Amino acid sequence: MSSGGRSAASLLSGSNEAVRGELLDGILQTDQYQLTMAQLYWKEGLAERHVQFDFFFRSYPDYGTHQAGYCIAAGLGPLLEWMGDTRFGRPELAALAEQRTADGKRRFDQGFLSWLEEHGDFSAIDMLAVPEGRVVHANAPIATVRGPLAMAQILETPLLNRLNYPTLIATKASRVKEAARGGPVMEFGMRRGPESGAHAGGRAALVGGCDFTSNVALSASLGIEPKGTHAHSMVQAFMALDLGELEAFRRYVDLYPDEAILLVDTIDVLESGIPNAIEVFKGLRAQGHKPGGIRLDSGDLAYLSVQAARMLNDAGFEDVSIVISSDLDELAIWSILSQIDEEAPRYGLDRDSLVRRMMFGVGTRLITSHGDPSLGGVYKLVAIDDLAGSWEPAIKVSEDLEKIPIPGEKQLFRVYDERGLASADVVALADEDPFEGDLLELHHPHREVHRSMRRSEISRVEALLESVFEDGRRVDGSPDLGTIRERRALDLEQLDTGVRRLVNPHIYHVSLTSKMKQLQLDLVAEATGASGSIS
Amino acid sequence: MSSGGRSAASLLSGSNEAVRGELLDGILQTDQYQLTMAQLYWKEGLAERHVQFDFFFRSYPDYGTHQAGYCIAAGLGPLLEWMGDTRFGRPELAALAEQRTADGKRRFDQGFLSWLEEHGDFSAIDMLAVPEGRVVHANAPIATVRGPLAMAQILETPLLNRLNYPTLIATKASRVKEAARGGPVMEFGMRRGPESGAHAGGRAALVGGCDFTSNVALSASLGIEPKGTHAHSMVQAFMALDLGELEAFRRYVDLYPDEAILLVDTIDVLESGIPNAIEVFKGLRAQGHKPGGIRLDSGDLAYLSVQAARMLNDAGFEDVSIVISSDLDELAIWSILSQIDEEAPRYGLDRDSLVRRMMFGVGTRLITSHGDPSLGGVYKLVAIDDLAGSWEPAIKVSEDLEKIPIPGEKQLFRVYDERGLASADVVALADEDPFEGDLLELHHPHREVHRSMRRSEISRVEALLESVFEDGRRVDGSPDLGTIRERRALDLEQLDTGVRRLVNPHIYHVSLTSKMKQLQLDLVAEATGASGSIS
Repeated sequence: MSSGGRSAASLLSGSNEAVRGELLDGILQTDQYQLTMAQLYWKEGLAERHVQFDFFFRSYPDYGTHQAGYCIAAGLGPLLEWMGDTRFGRPELAALAEQRTADGKRRFDQGFLSWLEEHGDFSAIDMLAVPEGRVVHANAPIATVRGPLAMAQILETPLLNRLNYPTLIATKASRVKEAARGGPVMEFGMRRGPESGAHAGGRAALVGGCDFTSNVALSASLGIEPKGTHAHSMVQAFMALDLGELEAFRRYVDLYPDEAILLVDTIDVLESGIPNAIEVFKGLRAQGHKPGGIRLDSGDLAYLSVQAARMLNDAGFEDVSIVISSDLDELAIWSILSQIDEEAPRYGLDRDSLVRRMMFGVGTRLITSHGDPSLGGVYKLVAIDDLAGSWEPAIKVSEDLEKIPIPGEKQLFRVYDERGLASADVVALADEDPFEGDLLELHHPHREVHRSMRRSEISRVEALLESVFEDGRRVDGSPDLGTIRERRALDLEQLDTGVRRLVNPHIYHVSLTSKMKQLQLDLVAEATGASGSIS
Repeated sequence: MSSGGRSAASLLSGSNEAVRGELLDGILQTDQYQLTMAQLYWKEGLAERHVQFDFFFRSYPDYGTHQAGYCIAAGLGPLLEWMGDTRFGRPELAALAEQRTADGKRRFDQGFLSWLEEHGDFSAIDMLAVPEGRVVHANAPIATVRGPLAMAQILETPLLNRLNYPTLIATKASRVKEAARGGPVMEFGMRRGPESGAHAGGRAALVGGCDFTSNVALSASLGIEPKGTHAHSMVQAFMALDLGELEAFRRYVDLYPDEAILLVDTIDVLESGIPNAIEVFKGLRAQGHKPGGIRLDSGDLAYLSVQAARMLNDAGFEDVSIVISSDLDELAIWSILSQIDEEAPRYGLDRDSLVRRMMFGVGTRLITSHGDPSLGGVYKLVAIDDLAGSWEPAIKVSEDLEKIPIPGEKQLFRVYDERGLASADVVALADEDPFEGDLLELHHPHREVHRSMRRSEISRVEALLESVFEDGRRVDGSPDLGTIRERRALDLEQLDTGVRRLVNPHIYHVSLTSKMKQLQLDLVAEATGASGSIS
């Protein structure tokens, strides 16, 4: 290799920021063991043997006091874009050539690096996946990857990295949007978000139900308008200049007469902020403008919202928005709106009108998925090409029965009941038609529990996995954010309200067909020497 | 502007990935309200008025069942690099020119965009900061930014984004390293980490005490060796090919004879994994190699570690490492090592030898700061240039007394006691010498509590804030990771063990001098009309 003599450190030193940035975004964004395993597969002649890995998660986010009953798939589009663009190029191969074992030997053989130079991209990978924005469930495969063992193995880490966190955040956003009763939700989390991961978090929040983000770069890259209000520092600056809060508000609405949302808690909400806001709103009205709203960012947000509504209504501003923020999540919003339901009538306010004028700025607790900051999605080897035209199923027999995956090549169906609501996701063998008989036996993925469903109880069956990556490029039609958001909305409409419940939701059924269950039992028996059959 | 007619969507459409990536990494990585406020300041002739903002956090991470008593500052280096490189360029100005209000008008005036074109970088910003890697405390300023109001305001979001999350993760890593009794800790979190933020998380983990990361791209960019073992999928693949676990191990150690760490829990740890590992280790020994170790990734890690040690010792492998992983954090490690302390002697094992051979792979719970996934660092306006050669202090009077910041231009000192241990961080006015008298009065930052310290109790006083950014570039000497890690180690040695305690730590004192306390009280009184004085 032409760069053989250069050390990674010199190649990547401070003066060469472009190379450093390229490496961080590139195909080395994987775990070291993927590369050492890939080299073993290369040495054993297995690098190009076709295999299948499944991506799935085993349990929904559990936020401690509340739990998710479904997830929203997110992150697929950016993953597919990255897979199409990335490969082992010169800087990556140079970095691997520089790796040394403790005794100073090269860790990666030149033959392996040459193999990577030729085959080190994802052009031989095929992927099926549940499209972004759709409701997805525990234990059901959300993506299946087929392709050469070495590259499918290297893909594990970047795939999990690009799907786990976005799915986690889209799920939280969906819950926040539900708690907000469909009212406008703005994502404000960049300042407490995970450094550059805040972009993926913001995008996932939009996928999951947020209407806007304050993140300007992300909005510009998606072609949407960002949203925001103003900060306490603006009022403080005018105060320090002896101009005061009222003058700060006046000058701000003078510049933004048709979209000013005034933050009223820098000094005192009821004594200073709202009276000052009303005064400048009167000026706006006199000039023919329609004031935007006020924002509350501290204190008892339910009480202050009711009092703000009273004061604004008394001044004839019944339409201006009341934006609340400050450590909000789905439970806080639910609780605040419940309190407003109760208190508004006591002050002569119509509660539905008040709830309709509310907007929600949600930051830290959304972008960190407060309560459960990770989705445990995994990527498991489920089958290997037997070189005789079939897939040999693979399994891991864990200490923990709940961790035994569903083996082999498979299909995923969603079954809708007589009401048109999704009632089960069914995992079947690739070559069976599980709906041909009148009675469908459905088995728990890990426990010896099963139930029956009659064909007549099923109004519709839908195959969920679609081809999304072939021949080195995405083939999912590159849906835009609007399309993805519509998928979420439609899937939620078709989901039982019990499964959508914010606290202690009803458990959605993900089941195996009898044939798939038998395959799983057979493989466990084969690996452990024990025997098993469907009870 | 030359790009006037192009829409943001067209400028940023799928075909122009480079522009999209540039925007996501660039100066628009801020909240929308920073830009609308900046335009107001520009319109009011205040854009170039000098101000001071402080960065600080109000409370340590609280993980629920355990709490941090200190934090490790992290993220400063990458922040300073970014500040030196970024500015409002053509794509950013084009994106702002495309923003529209609801009635279709441009939100940003051409005059403001022209101002940004000329002044839209951080070359007029000066920053002082506590260096990366150092122990830092709640309520003490970790960074102070001085410069023109508009650009200092725009900096808020990217500064918080680049300091909050890394400081959170470095803090968690430091605790993990302490729980591991200084033993080797590897960061394995990329797959569950926050998408591209996993790089910042991995770097922060190294700052905070981890010895290695499995993240190949990050390691290469830092010029260090990544570490890893192998996955269950490798054993599964050999099993599916009817070769089995033993053959998988054999072929793996044949390729990596001097650094193989074998994952022994794919089938059964004690019945299959460890016996097979011992068999291949015997082969290695016969060839003159030194086996690396085994890894346990499920089950009762304490019990299995003890049993693994017994079996390995019986075969004469008393030195090979025992790596544990699987949802580890500081509390899990502490608990596992405590159990080993107790159980090892029952099996005739020397507990210290066993603990010394342990290594720790820490993933999800580190990179997400499990238990408390955000650091609430804030960036508050504390002073504004009065155009008469002085700083006019600024304050926000919140609903919550704990949120009232420390106003004005200031200094931060660390005071060491007779034992050479840090005993307090002291915030003073910029122009006072708090140590000139024999008695130092120290006031709580928010409560009416104070105490006295005699000069004779103080062995050393250290100024913590250093100049790190001037004239548009970093001036902190660009310390490497090793230097940063040494700072952490030294600071921890000088920290009381009570403050370092993993659960319910002793509270470290951050105090105001009498003059600073009086300034805070005066400003609150001025803003609210009440009066206050030091009790």
